[in-house]
Amino acid sequence: MSGYETAIQNLIDELGRLPGIGPKSAQRLAFYLLTQEKEDVSRLVKAISVVQETVQFCEICGNVTEANICLICQDERRDATQLCVVEEPKDIQAIERTRVFHGRYHVLGGVIDPMKGVGPDQLRIQQLFARLQGSAVQEVILATNPTLEGDATAMFISRYLAESGVKITKPASGLPVGGDLEYADDITLGRALEGRQSL
Amino acid sequence: MSGYETAIQNLIDELGRLPGIGPKSAQRLAFYLLTQEKEDVSRLVKAISVVQETVQFCEICGNVTEANICLICQDERRDATQLCVVEEPKDIQAIERTRVFHGRYHVLGGVIDPMKGVGPDQLRIQQLFARLQGSAVQEVILATNPTLEGDATAMFISRYLAESGVKITKPASGLPVGGDLEYADDITLGRALEGRQSL
Repeated sequence: MSGYETAIQNLIDELGRLPGIGPKSAQRLAFYLLTQEKEDVSRLVKAISVVQETVQFCEICGNVTEANICLICQDERRDATQLCVVEEPKDIQAIERTRVFHGRYHVLGGVIDPMKGVGPDQLRIQQLFARLQGSAVQEVILATNPTLEGDATAMFISRYLAESGVKITKPASGLPVGGDLEYADDITLGRALEGRQSL
Repeated sequence: MSGYETAIQNLIDELGRLPGIGPKSAQRLAFYLLTQEKEDVSRLVKAISVVQETVQFCEICGNVTEANICLICQDERRDATQLCVVEEPKDIQAIERTRVFHGRYHVLGGVIDPMKGVGPDQLRIQQLFARLQGSAVQEVILATNPTLEGDATAMFISRYLAESGVKITKPASGLPVGGDLEYADDITLGRALEGRQSL
């Protein structure tokens, strides 16, 4: 039951469809937007529209871009021998922030998840294999998320590439820096022990 | 540092200005909007614009409305002898959902909060007093939030109305239904004990 008049209820409903926004947050956001200056709200509305109109996916790697080819793929200085495979464009940003990797990327657009009906064909896996054909890539880093589906997807790709002669790696699993042994979950702690490094 | 191109970064920034939306949520929302159908996103954009254009505040009570007078103030069947004073329009919705109150409302538009520079003059308190002059109101229910500021605001109003002859009440403080004594905070438990009711 709701006593709001049409326009407000409609906005609350639309905001409530966004991921991670529950009914209470939607209501709070609606009232916030209601009480803001017209120009502030226009800026938000414009930003949404502009993104819809200008942003597309890079023809080479699948990253988000405002051109046909993204800035990273355009950058000749990036190491063409290393290719980092990630699930989503936002993972590229996370890796770029580390300033540790200077190669190129390939975005899968998700992970293999039979429960959600996502198989290899729904991802950019064929494009990855095609891209590797006759390329300069010497190492493929499978940086999918350390989840059940992420690991399975990495496994699927690594099996397919096993005989290609390309080196296949993945980021180390282990304890997060600044973390606490006591609070690490069993699987993380187990992997950290298995992958122990000599000092 | 961010490697996003202009349009996406701009959208992330705008979304990050919304209350309760941190940088991570803003990024997730931006990517969500990016990958949605054009018409779904247009519906959201339209809902925001329509609210900005059509929604205003009721001239009588301060509730949100699409006309000059809100639906509750327009409703002749509402009891004109009871007036419930709330902080925000969304509090009206919360009280309406209980179906317990059938009187009318008055929205203050906030609480007295000297730390934030909000005094009685920034709220709709003068309008409340003016509204009570020569009205049929016999009881004013001060339903501000049970916070320090909410209680202080209720106290301020009740002192002002002390000699008006109008009955002043506030909702009972106590243990939430379904709650657990053990987990109640001390102040709530204390108030619940002070306000104990005979069975």
